[in-house]
Amino acid sequence: MDQRLSFLTLAVADVARSRAFFVEGLGWQESLYVPGDVLMIRVGERLVLSLWDRAAFEAEVGPIATGEGFAPLTLAHNVASPADVDEVLEEAAAAGATVRSTGTEREWGGYSGYFVDPDGFAWEVAYNPGPIGQDLLP
Amino acid sequence: MDQRLSFLTLAVADVARSRAFFVEGLGWQESLYVPGDVLMIRVGERLVLSLWDRAAFEAEVGPIATGEGFAPLTLAHNVASPADVDEVLEEAAAAGATVRSTGTEREWGGYSGYFVDPDGFAWEVAYNPGPIGQDLLP
Repeated sequence: MDQRLSFLTLAVADVARSRAFFVEGLGWQESLYVPGDVLMIRVGERLVLSLWDRAAFEAEVGPIATGEGFAPLTLAHNVASPADVDEVLEEAAAAGATVRSTGTEREWGGYSGYFVDPDGFAWEVAYNPGPIGQDLLP
Repeated sequence: MDQRLSFLTLAVADVARSRAFFVEGLGWQESLYVPGDVLMIRVGERLVLSLWDRAAFEAEVGPIATGEGFAPLTLAHNVASPADVDEVLEEAAAAGATVRSTGTEREWGGYSGYFVDPDGFAWEVAYNPGPIGQDLLP
C-alpha cells in the first residue's frame, strides 16, 4: 500500500448546504455534484474532497458516532504568512463559516486560527514557517 | 481561499500505536515523529497526514464527540484494478487493520472494500474506473 490518500470523504447533513458554502461561498470549483447525494471538489494534485450525504454514508460505512463535540479531525489550509491566515479566516467567515479561533501564535512556531464549516468540521488556516509547512505551499 | 488541503489531522489515542501500524506495518515513511505527541506522514504531493495525540488535539481544538459508531469520514486509497483492491486489503490486515468489508462491486461502477485502522477510522481501498478515479492514480 503506497503512502497516498486519494479521497477524503466527510459525511454531511445537507449536500446543498455544503455546496452553498464551498462552491458559492468560497468559490471552489466542483468536479461532481449529484444533488442530495454527493459533492466532489479537487483539493490537491491527486486528492478529492468528497462531501457525502450522511444517510448514504451510513448505509455503506456504518453508523456514525454522534454527540456533543468535534469530529476527531481537522483539515488544514496552509498559507504563506500570518497576514494570509487572517485574510483567509475573514474570507471563510464571509462565506458563512464560524471562526472558532482567530489567528494565534502557536508553540510549534507558527500562527494559525480555526473556522468551523456548516457541518461542524474544524478547518485550520495555518502559517507554518518550518520545512514541512513551507514544502506544502504551491 | 484556494481549493487546497495541506494537512489532514486525525486525533489518535496512542501515537506509538499509530506508528506501529502506518510506519512499521504498512512501511510508510514518517516526516516527523514526536513520541507521545504527533506522527506526520506525507500522503500526497502537498499533503501530510498527521496523527495527533487526542489530549493535545482536544486542548487546541476542543472536546471530541464520543460514542458508538464511526467518525464521520473515510480516507480512500485508490488503485488501478479490483485485484489491487483485494491485495491492499490483505496488506492492511497483515499490518494489523480489521477488514470491515472485503472487495465489493459498487453501484457507482467501481469495486472497493474498507479496513479500519487502530483508532477506528475507516479507510476505503477503491478501484474507480470513472474519469475522476482514474485521474487520481499516480
